[in-house]
Amino acid sequence: MRSTLLAPDTGNRILQWADLLARHSEPPWDDRGELTATYLTQAHLATSGDLAQLMRGSGFDEVALDAVGNVVGVYRAALKGAPVLLTGSHYDTVRNAGKYDGRLGILVPIACVAALARAGRRLSFDIELVAFAEEEGQRFRATFLGSGALTGDFDPQWLDQQDGHGVTMRDAMRAAGLPGDMAAISALRRDPSRYLGFVEVHIEQGPVLVEQALPLGVVTSINAGARFVCEAGGRAEHAGTTPMGMRRDALLAAAEISLLVERRASQAPGLVGTVGQMDVPGGSINVVPGVCRFTLDLRAPTDAQRDALVSDVLSGAKEIASRRQISLECNESMRAAAAPSDPAWQARWERAVTAIGQPVFRLNSGAGHDAMKLHTIMPQAMLFVRGGNRGISHNPLEIISAEDAALAVLAFEALLDDLDTTHDDRQD
Amino acid sequence: MRSTLLAPDTGNRILQWADLLARHSEPPWDDRGELTATYLTQAHLATSGDLAQLMRGSGFDEVALDAVGNVVGVYRAALKGAPVLLTGSHYDTVRNAGKYDGRLGILVPIACVAALARAGRRLSFDIELVAFAEEEGQRFRATFLGSGALTGDFDPQWLDQQDGHGVTMRDAMRAAGLPGDMAAISALRRDPSRYLGFVEVHIEQGPVLVEQALPLGVVTSINAGARFVCEAGGRAEHAGTTPMGMRRDALLAAAEISLLVERRASQAPGLVGTVGQMDVPGGSINVVPGVCRFTLDLRAPTDAQRDALVSDVLSGAKEIASRRQISLECNESMRAAAAPSDPAWQARWERAVTAIGQPVFRLNSGAGHDAMKLHTIMPQAMLFVRGGNRGISHNPLEIISAEDAALAVLAFEALLDDLDTTHDDRQD
Repeated sequence: MRSTLLAPDTGNRILQWADLLARHSEPPWDDRGELTATYLTQAHLATSGDLAQLMRGSGFDEVALDAVGNVVGVYRAALKGAPVLLTGSHYDTVRNAGKYDGRLGILVPIACVAALARAGRRLSFDIELVAFAEEEGQRFRATFLGSGALTGDFDPQWLDQQDGHGVTMRDAMRAAGLPGDMAAISALRRDPSRYLGFVEVHIEQGPVLVEQALPLGVVTSINAGARFVCEAGGRAEHAGTTPMGMRRDALLAAAEISLLVERRASQAPGLVGTVGQMDVPGGSINVVPGVCRFTLDLRAPTDAQRDALVSDVLSGAKEIASRRQISLECNESMRAAAAPSDPAWQARWERAVTAIGQPVFRLNSGAGHDAMKLHTIMPQAMLFVRGGNRGISHNPLEIISAEDAALAVLAFEALLDDLDTTHDDRQD
Repeated sequence: MRSTLLAPDTGNRILQWADLLARHSEPPWDDRGELTATYLTQAHLATSGDLAQLMRGSGFDEVALDAVGNVVGVYRAALKGAPVLLTGSHYDTVRNAGKYDGRLGILVPIACVAALARAGRRLSFDIELVAFAEEEGQRFRATFLGSGALTGDFDPQWLDQQDGHGVTMRDAMRAAGLPGDMAAISALRRDPSRYLGFVEVHIEQGPVLVEQALPLGVVTSINAGARFVCEAGGRAEHAGTTPMGMRRDALLAAAEISLLVERRASQAPGLVGTVGQMDVPGGSINVVPGVCRFTLDLRAPTDAQRDALVSDVLSGAKEIASRRQISLECNESMRAAAAPSDPAWQARWERAVTAIGQPVFRLNSGAGHDAMKLHTIMPQAMLFVRGGNRGISHNPLEIISAEDAALAVLAFEALLDDLDTTHDDRQD
């Protein structure tokens, strides 16, 4: 183990900070553990206020709310004009969320900067921490809005989008004291040439690290994904009078397709395939299903693997439907490219994990993260932290241990140290 | 072909009678072909009035509405005190029904009695035709009410049951001029010793006769059935982050069970098994299904075959659930005994079909019929008539041809002839 600037209670402090932020909720945080802070609500604005205060109190030199509500803190390098390490994650939440999803990736860098500031230590690069205002796409259909503003992916049409109460995003922004116009938002786009890269710490949101009994995992790739909404059409008939051999049962085609998805996605590690919804609209206990609607969610570590998975599933599904004389329509509702970690930055996380005495365990990310957006303009790599309760997330049962939180801070500190000595070698 | 008393336009007349009855509907019969006549509604009462008039005009000696609304017509034998042949079917309908379901089995005997009466011919037995007031269980949950009143199966609690508008069955009966009390209803119970047996003509409501290109089929058994409402419980998890091998997907268990039902029910002719409804309550496209609800409808020609089917499906389902670490609960919501045709009465239908120059084709009935009720107190056998449109039923698309209707009348007449010469041999 290496020496560290960190205070011994760092892990507990991370958990306390997360509790502090979780007080802000719509409806209010209560004993049932309910936490909801969607974009630009009172709870969300109170959270950004707390985050700005926390950054200032921890020694960040500049802290500001940007035009989309991101809280941006900068800890200056020893020398002016130094390159910048970008880091951060989101502080908005899903409904009835956990306290660490997103926020852990803000609090860990704050703890590191607090230690640096306390020690009066400056690095050879600026640390720019962005607490992204929006990643979950809950209040508006504008997922990754916060990180998207940094990469030039803010869609101007979003400003006119209305939330469930008919409030446009522009009005919500103005009510929050933000300019609410594209000129200010477009100015948030980062110039990649100023940046070393982007790193993000995040809870795993899955069971792999728990199963491996490991606190940390180095992300190799954020999975590519594709989603489909499908409808199988057969013939609704009397369940008593229609012989088995004369049926065109839409549900049975969907059932076979579900099992095909499972079989195909199990062929290689890192692939996942899910039929999350299935329904026989207007079905009855005594009627052969004439229609069956179902969804497909297919993910893989690379675009090529995703494409092969999609192609095999869709062609297999077509074969099943054709054999059963079932019509089948699958409409793509989402397709996201994979974000493989930059090899040099993945190696930095691996060295950092090794430096703090932990085994290197690599895994891919099945969930999307802000790093996917930054990936489009700069190298990126992520570190996953083990979640308790089998990694459950998007749920009040989401937990992490103080020990694991402390290890995440130690690893981040190790990465900073490593980068401090090696960043000149940009081609490494 | 044998000589017949029937008028040459008999088939067309049956279809015209069915059209006449179908004018009475709630909402009214219109160009969209909508026919709904549920128990004791205005449409239903108008239908019973038409039926009584039709029976009287066709030569029935006694015609009366009984205490549950059955229209009962008797065509007297040559001698007083002769035994009775019971026949009939129901005149109530499902919502948005076809015109022949039930009613064909009333109209065919009317046509035969009309021919007998026209010729002044009396048989060695009474013909008692009952147009059953209720079989479908639509307005009240009291399926087979009409035939059940004849077998002592009228449940006294039904009188207090309310329809969708809060009207009790007792009040509906009294509004229709019926006594609405159990003394009168209990008196409807038939003494089996007076009866030769029960025969019922019915449209097939399935595609078998169409596929066989045959107008008539002799029923070997009305299937035994069992229904279950099942819930599979797994673990709802992130569809992106939960590796395939770590999942407990409730939908996949249900999908496998659906295919097991199909496979097992396909093992012997006459068996059918259907998963008619399936649902992932609260499911999302990106969440592994934690709960999946589905139904089972299992039917077989005999109770023993039904029991074996149920047992194999439930034990197979348990095995699937256990292998997948899924909890599974299946609650039985219905169990009905098979009603195998009485061999002597089935043989009479077979001789009747042969006598009119048609091939004998035997099939079992997947749907329930009034004959199931009469089965509990006297021998019974049914004749099926081919439906067009692949036998579709419970649907305005339900049709039969005038030719097939005429053949049904011819077969019924042949059965009467046969019985007229053989009925003394009660043990045949």
